[in-house]
Amino acid sequence: MTTEQDEWRELGQQLRVDSIRSSSAAGSGHPTSSMSAADLMAVLMSKYLHYDFGSPEDPRNDHLIFSKGHASPLLYAVYKAAGAIGDDEMLTFRKFGSRIEGHPTPMLPWVDVATGSLGQGLPIAVGVALAGRKLDRLPYRVWVLCGDSEMAEGSMWEAFEHAGVEGLDNLTAIIDVNRLGQTGETMHGWDLEAYRARAEAFGWHAITIDGHDVAEIDRALTEALDTSGRPTVLIARTEKGHGVKAVANQPGRHGKPLDDPEAAIAELGGLRSRTVPILKPDFEGEPHQFPTEKLQLPVYEPGTKEATRKAFGDALVALGKARGDIVAIDGEVGNSTYTEEFSQALPERFFQAYIAEQQMVAMAVGLQVRQWKPFAATFAAFLSRAYDFVRIAAVSRANISLVGSHAGVSIGEDGPSQMALEDLASLRAVHGSTVLYPSDANQTVSLVAQMADREGIVYMRTTREKTPILYEPGEEFPIGGSRVVRHSGDDVVTLIAAGITLHESVKAADALKAEGIAARVIDLYSVKPVDADGIRAAARDTGAVVTVEDHWPEGGIGDAVLDALAAEQPHPLVVKLAVTGMPTSGTPAELLAAAGIDAEHIADAVRRLVARSGARERTTSEAGGGRRE
Amino acid sequence: MTTEQDEWRELGQQLRVDSIRSSSAAGSGHPTSSMSAADLMAVLMSKYLHYDFGSPEDPRNDHLIFSKGHASPLLYAVYKAAGAIGDDEMLTFRKFGSRIEGHPTPMLPWVDVATGSLGQGLPIAVGVALAGRKLDRLPYRVWVLCGDSEMAEGSMWEAFEHAGVEGLDNLTAIIDVNRLGQTGETMHGWDLEAYRARAEAFGWHAITIDGHDVAEIDRALTEALDTSGRPTVLIARTEKGHGVKAVANQPGRHGKPLDDPEAAIAELGGLRSRTVPILKPDFEGEPHQFPTEKLQLPVYEPGTKEATRKAFGDALVALGKARGDIVAIDGEVGNSTYTEEFSQALPERFFQAYIAEQQMVAMAVGLQVRQWKPFAATFAAFLSRAYDFVRIAAVSRANISLVGSHAGVSIGEDGPSQMALEDLASLRAVHGSTVLYPSDANQTVSLVAQMADREGIVYMRTTREKTPILYEPGEEFPIGGSRVVRHSGDDVVTLIAAGITLHESVKAADALKAEGIAARVIDLYSVKPVDADGIRAAARDTGAVVTVEDHWPEGGIGDAVLDALAAEQPHPLVVKLAVTGMPTSGTPAELLAAAGIDAEHIADAVRRLVARSGARERTTSEAGGGRRE
Repeated sequence: MTTEQDEWRELGQQLRVDSIRSSSAAGSGHPTSSMSAADLMAVLMSKYLHYDFGSPEDPRNDHLIFSKGHASPLLYAVYKAAGAIGDDEMLTFRKFGSRIEGHPTPMLPWVDVATGSLGQGLPIAVGVALAGRKLDRLPYRVWVLCGDSEMAEGSMWEAFEHAGVEGLDNLTAIIDVNRLGQTGETMHGWDLEAYRARAEAFGWHAITIDGHDVAEIDRALTEALDTSGRPTVLIARTEKGHGVKAVANQPGRHGKPLDDPEAAIAELGGLRSRTVPILKPDFEGEPHQFPTEKLQLPVYEPGTKEATRKAFGDALVALGKARGDIVAIDGEVGNSTYTEEFSQALPERFFQAYIAEQQMVAMAVGLQVRQWKPFAATFAAFLSRAYDFVRIAAVSRANISLVGSHAGVSIGEDGPSQMALEDLASLRAVHGSTVLYPSDANQTVSLVAQMADREGIVYMRTTREKTPILYEPGEEFPIGGSRVVRHSGDDVVTLIAAGITLHESVKAADALKAEGIAARVIDLYSVKPVDADGIRAAARDTGAVVTVEDHWPEGGIGDAVLDALAAEQPHPLVVKLAVTGMPTSGTPAELLAAAGIDAEHIADAVRRLVARSGARERTTSEAGGGRRE
Repeated sequence: MTTEQDEWRELGQQLRVDSIRSSSAAGSGHPTSSMSAADLMAVLMSKYLHYDFGSPEDPRNDHLIFSKGHASPLLYAVYKAAGAIGDDEMLTFRKFGSRIEGHPTPMLPWVDVATGSLGQGLPIAVGVALAGRKLDRLPYRVWVLCGDSEMAEGSMWEAFEHAGVEGLDNLTAIIDVNRLGQTGETMHGWDLEAYRARAEAFGWHAITIDGHDVAEIDRALTEALDTSGRPTVLIARTEKGHGVKAVANQPGRHGKPLDDPEAAIAELGGLRSRTVPILKPDFEGEPHQFPTEKLQLPVYEPGTKEATRKAFGDALVALGKARGDIVAIDGEVGNSTYTEEFSQALPERFFQAYIAEQQMVAMAVGLQVRQWKPFAATFAAFLSRAYDFVRIAAVSRANISLVGSHAGVSIGEDGPSQMALEDLASLRAVHGSTVLYPSDANQTVSLVAQMADREGIVYMRTTREKTPILYEPGEEFPIGGSRVVRHSGDDVVTLIAAGITLHESVKAADALKAEGIAARVIDLYSVKPVDADGIRAAARDTGAVVTVEDHWPEGGIGDAVLDALAAEQPHPLVVKLAVTGMPTSGTPAELLAAAGIDAEHIADAVRRLVARSGARERTTSEAGGGRRE
């Protein structure tokens, strides 16, 4: 009689065989890293995973995340065994045009998030588990297969810490301790106790097992189900390449197909083609919905002053009250970013990420897996801590909003460690991203309202200082647009800026006007996508352009403008003003001046440009000053 | 009779008073976060720190790093008490032009590295301690003041892990557990045992103390000195704002001067102006020097093929053999980046960072504190994990070389998670950075040899695929230069590329030549600084430019070229070819074609450009094809 355990062992062999087959067909991939975890996945999928592969959108489904994304051959073998994909498709692994990619991506409907940059799957899973516990309020479970090499990533310990503190007993991590990394042994080899001590110290229930003993795996998974108040981690001693002598526990076998796949398959008992009935979700229920009220966006009186970061905080609360799907996360600086307003008004939908920016972004990605609309905020400079998470979030086709406050030298006294001067560049260079940089509180409100439904990675840069309200409440500022804030028929130059430097540009334009130099000023609040038509039209009209940004010269507003003008003929003269020297402490005014991006330096740059270009100059009717030159 | 302990208590009060005074003079800063750690620093500086403030370059000096950089008022109070700065200078805190910056930077000669982005000081300190143990081979000690909030950063646990595994008993961390973060209580409040369990699990000796009891502090620091084989952490229960009732252990007091500094100073017993004699280094010795041999750089035969990543590995070994100051670090992918050659040839100077890119870069920064020349390598995509560390390394004026392999879609089957497509943009947007992207193995060698002595953050992007050797061995490729690889008097367009796309551009130029379209090709191996003169000269000569890069369109080669041409009049037409869609798996050739950056697409772009611009066209003598419109 075939026992359940025999079935699991057979399935484990099938998963190994299929991992070998797909990687051999591809000529690349990670079969040995798949083979180590095959028995773990065989038991999990046969008895514990609840998932309707026919309805990946079912909110009651469990979530299975391969944090060790390079074990993709195993994941695809699991999908095949579950009947989700056919053998033919599995064998298109890594082929151009196939959705069976080298590392898992959401091109497949059962893949929540892309993995392949180690140390991200578990932090994201924490976000999914939080969604289940606190937002959806559904008892689905989150299962994560982790590698032992990736335990060296600090982000894994951010995840352990958060899951432990939150007591996420709907989350189970399985560490495939196969001992071998890409080039050699991991820091802890097969020292399962090293992992156990760490996990327990972080508040997890930890179980050490033989990862090739299906009975032990079964008992441990049951124990995970039975553990309440804490997440559970299975620390499984496994062999890389288990089951095939030529590669089992051998160094130098990472990330390559087997030399003799046929012999290996024979050694594993040959081809199998079992299909395992996967349990469907075993509870009824719909995701929780939060009560809402009518949208009432904040308004600011033109002529007064407000910081865009404050307007963001105000707008987020308003949006959150009107829409139950809006959630907020902060990196423990909510009184700087102003998410504290949201945390006070809507505490059930606020998540404190503490000083753990990687976990903050991962949490956002995890929450959006379940269709929530996360806004994650910290100092713009510290979003750089999570850059790899943002990069991979784009591969995940994740829809998340990131908000960075305290951008640029204009933050003043805190000094360069707190000044984001690379955020526009780095976040423009994310696939499909949107980069917004409002100059005014009412504009901020308009943009925040658009962010929630924007696809992809949406970034807003906010300003620490209070700046004048330029626009009427309720004006529309479509993403991808720009706004002309100073304009005359005589303009000889266009100043293009956003945020703090827009106000400096307006002051410069007003000063220049008094000297008889008419300058157009464009508010480039949407840095990506950029209003290329608007920029080109202004450039054609005025013939010269000066860009001004509180950012390094590389990759920000100036480069976005140059890109928009790349194919213009005739081409305007373009001068970029940006921060070139390492800033220090000082007042915002001192630092803007030192960087050469305050009104006075902008006006000087225009004067030099006008002199150099021999551009038209006219005395405007308001100006008493004489003509120059 | 005044006891030693009375002296320490008095000194602690002085450090508090001075922290209040400097932040009050500045009108900003973090006095309460300084006051909590004042007693810890009073005992440390009085009895344990060995440092010659008159000779900060003395290699025997201990190192004192404030990982909680916002406690800068305390650090400056320590410097004043040590006689390193005067009271007047201390009171220039946060003023424009002062070196007493908001967060510590190496503008002060006693500050090893900038801090202020939490979670970086300890990882860097691990690098300094490794330098002491393994390179300098001197018994100086590394002392690190950590905040409790920053223990949420995964990078801290990367540091705990590495220091524990390496058994760095020359490293002592002091966690100032003042319970309160910026907006509220930390995850663990005053639960010292939570920190102890974590630290011990990671292999540290942990001591919990009352951080305001100088006798306990003294005993614990002695215990740290007496502990061998393991690093020690003091977990000190403290009060934020200790000593002043109005702020002690009060929420809402983070990062602001005291409301009534005079009363607070009175409560603390008034002004003091003690100067503490700091112990000098108490051992003799010079840093270890590694034996060297004559430099013999590798050479590659023109016409053959080699990958630039391999040439990097070869060159690094050659350089390392000839120079004892060269060291290498890898993120556990040394057989991909080819640092494995260095690790085999010069194992004493190789450091394995495992899959912990933040710790890898921090280690590099720590090693260069002691004048070593680190090269740190991983997949270029995964350098994004350490972006904040690179950003802060620039504030530290650190000299480090970073090498990223596997750039772009041309890596092929592994798919987008492994493809760096934002590295040029993000690393160009680092202050003072150098960005190199060699196209040929001999060129790579020339550039690697220059990297070691280049100031600042120096990044080299290498290519996975083997590419043709274009240049003779020994040719010079100065940083900031470019190289014309195809040229005729009839060129109607300039193709600008580097790395993998340079070879595609050469192929395109050869194909176009056969059609009678002469294209110049420039190898832009130095992306920053860029050869603006060379680009402008070619653009003037040919009138149209096509840039080609295996990178997103934002912030890479195309934008560097547009920036160089910004002020050109007349301005050439510029077309940027770059990766615009999310790549998938596939062969390198398929993916280059899909991205529109292979030879065929480049040639097509030139044909369209020539047609559109009505540029000059000539039949080159070699070309038999007829003239095209």
